[in-house]
Amino acid sequence: MLIVQKYGGSSLEDTDRIRSIAGRILEAHRSGHEIVAVCSAMGDTSDELIDLAGRVSGAPPAREMDMLLTAGERVSNALMAMAIRDLGGDARSLSGAQAGIFTDASYGGARIVRVTPVRVRQVLDQGAVALVAGFQGLSRDTDDTTTLGRGGSDVTAVALAAALKADMCEIYTDVDGVFSADPRIVPGARPLAAISSEEMLEMAATGAKVLMPRCVEYARRHGVDIRVRSSFTDRPGTLVSDAVEGAAVEGSYVTGVTHTRSLARIAVAEVADDPAAAAEVLGLLATAGIFVDMVQHIPAGPRSGLVFTVPAGDGPRTVELLERHRERIGCGPTRCDTGMGMVSLVGAAIRSDPGVLATLYRTLAEAGIGVRTVSVSEIRVSVLCLDDRLDDAVRALHRSFGLDAAGEAVVHAGTGR
Amino acid sequence: MLIVQKYGGSSLEDTDRIRSIAGRILEAHRSGHEIVAVCSAMGDTSDELIDLAGRVSGAPPAREMDMLLTAGERVSNALMAMAIRDLGGDARSLSGAQAGIFTDASYGGARIVRVTPVRVRQVLDQGAVALVAGFQGLSRDTDDTTTLGRGGSDVTAVALAAALKADMCEIYTDVDGVFSADPRIVPGARPLAAISSEEMLEMAATGAKVLMPRCVEYARRHGVDIRVRSSFTDRPGTLVSDAVEGAAVEGSYVTGVTHTRSLARIAVAEVADDPAAAAEVLGLLATAGIFVDMVQHIPAGPRSGLVFTVPAGDGPRTVELLERHRERIGCGPTRCDTGMGMVSLVGAAIRSDPGVLATLYRTLAEAGIGVRTVSVSEIRVSVLCLDDRLDDAVRALHRSFGLDAAGEAVVHAGTGR
Repeated sequence: MLIVQKYGGSSLEDTDRIRSIAGRILEAHRSGHEIVAVCSAMGDTSDELIDLAGRVSGAPPAREMDMLLTAGERVSNALMAMAIRDLGGDARSLSGAQAGIFTDASYGGARIVRVTPVRVRQVLDQGAVALVAGFQGLSRDTDDTTTLGRGGSDVTAVALAAALKADMCEIYTDVDGVFSADPRIVPGARPLAAISSEEMLEMAATGAKVLMPRCVEYARRHGVDIRVRSSFTDRPGTLVSDAVEGAAVEGSYVTGVTHTRSLARIAVAEVADDPAAAAEVLGLLATAGIFVDMVQHIPAGPRSGLVFTVPAGDGPRTVELLERHRERIGCGPTRCDTGMGMVSLVGAAIRSDPGVLATLYRTLAEAGIGVRTVSVSEIRVSVLCLDDRLDDAVRALHRSFGLDAAGEAVVHAGTGR
Repeated sequence: MLIVQKYGGSSLEDTDRIRSIAGRILEAHRSGHEIVAVCSAMGDTSDELIDLAGRVSGAPPAREMDMLLTAGERVSNALMAMAIRDLGGDARSLSGAQAGIFTDASYGGARIVRVTPVRVRQVLDQGAVALVAGFQGLSRDTDDTTTLGRGGSDVTAVALAAALKADMCEIYTDVDGVFSADPRIVPGARPLAAISSEEMLEMAATGAKVLMPRCVEYARRHGVDIRVRSSFTDRPGTLVSDAVEGAAVEGSYVTGVTHTRSLARIAVAEVADDPAAAAEVLGLLATAGIFVDMVQHIPAGPRSGLVFTVPAGDGPRTVELLERHRERIGCGPTRCDTGMGMVSLVGAAIRSDPGVLATLYRTLAEAGIGVRTVSVSEIRVSVLCLDDRLDDAVRALHRSFGLDAAGEAVVHAGTGR
């Protein structure tokens, strides 16, 4: 098998951890697999470099930030190669450019445009482990080093897995896989054995931090199977694959409960009841780089309201922007309520179960949690509530949808199961 | 003017120093010069990286050491670019590869084989400061990052100055130039205004640490003028140039007094009185990477003695090697005396002044310092003495050859001046 492994910074905190991961890589290699390992920068290296940049410049140019930050992965991958050699194995570290990761020239958040892992293949053909510096690439246009932005090392791993037609892409982290909910909030949360790419995409988009939506999307588009697992244990972790039909948790239509904190609910009054007006509003915010979610167009006669969420930090900017362009858009005043949070249910079977919504409302009502907005899509239901009740909402829903480890599933109202 | 500047790690200890150097670079740029600045890694970065390598591997592979170490210069040059931009200037940082520094594949001590600074020229043509990561290059054979070994950033600067036909190469350090002796030993030592390349080469070869012989040799071969100066002051420093005729210190034939500590004196007995035998001995040591100096072939009938120095740490290995090959070489037993040091006088006029040797012997005799070996070349006289008398020897010679800052030159015995 050809396996691409990716190790995050939390798995590479110090040289002891590097030696331990080297042992793990070597074990997989010695059991007969071809191994490509993508290492992130060690522990807090990236934060330390960002801190240095902040001390010399109020607004560091993106190109130089990329030159700066990519040093961290060169260090960790070179050290990993040394550690593997020291344990009697053979390994070669490659920069993003050497590994053939070519990107556009959007410094700080470059997109991969081509992957030609010729040297990676050469290293594998020599019987050695290929180590690749994650998070970085080379812009062909400018011949400059670029970074892939948040979660970039995961994308590097998935992109290499796709280009090398790997059998598996293992994403190693500090938790045992993708959980049914955040275990810091829900003590009974459990790692999922498997999850479909589609579900994972919704989980990631609604707050599951273990994988970035972009990485899942890339994997889905290229048919790459991902296994999310811990570098601290030998547990199997979670398989993320298109071949998975949906939630593997029995007795529930729901795969996981996710949450996002610190949102603002924006309500634009008197928007013309015309898709063009809503498009105008959303286009304006997209141009400003403001991430909009839970959009609802509420008809109210000839003029209607447009309601959506933005990250709380973007609330004031959003209001300012919409007030400034009020005339052009043709809308009324904009209101912003901060202190909101979103709890979401994700599951491939949600679409087929009308009882999910009923159980959801009943559960929240019993817990005394007010619902501000509900947004339903094929495999996800999201509810906006007050941020300070978010943890209660997550716990209550995780229990009532039968996800708690003990497993006493509540019968769904609509299905009688 | 096109000026290449090089800043060493001691000039870049922290972000405050980086900002201060950024100001210096910008000042030169704003006064109308084109500036290429080569920055070393910050302060102790390289030592820290070497330490990390030591913690994951007993014998880190050279290729991976180079990948590791070159991260330091990427960081410092990117930070410098940010600092310059923050001060209102414009700058772009380039890796060694981007700057067109191409080397052979000798990891850890690569030699520059070609310099094609196309991108450096482009950055200059855009009116910006070009920052280049020192100490590093790209091997065309392997497409791998290489390092140039000790003093590598100086070589980067000189090589760029040669390729760009720069008017001057300024090497910034933490002292005010090339001194007539080590100021830590000789309080009256003074910075030289100018020194010929040939003299500088001998000074560097005999212990002056401010420039490596390799850098001076590269500059001499390509006709690059170097100015060694402090990044902490505005003093002019020392001009190193082929255009300099020799010592600029009036009243003395000697330009500087240098010293090397911790040497071993090796005496090989009964070597056949035949150049081939000496060549055999020296070839053996060269292959073993042992640096030999002060070679003297002492005729003693049909068989003669061969005497030379090696670094004290290489003494035991040298003896072991020569004893092992005694039969092949055709020589007697080898003796090793450690605890030796070498003091040298360097000056373009030494060859023309027979009085130098007489003054040298008289000075050392008066100071009660025993002379073990004397070696005389065109512009240098070296004396081997006991290591624990080395400082006394340096001070006595510095004074008697009229180099002390006060300047009371002793009249040379042979010249009557």
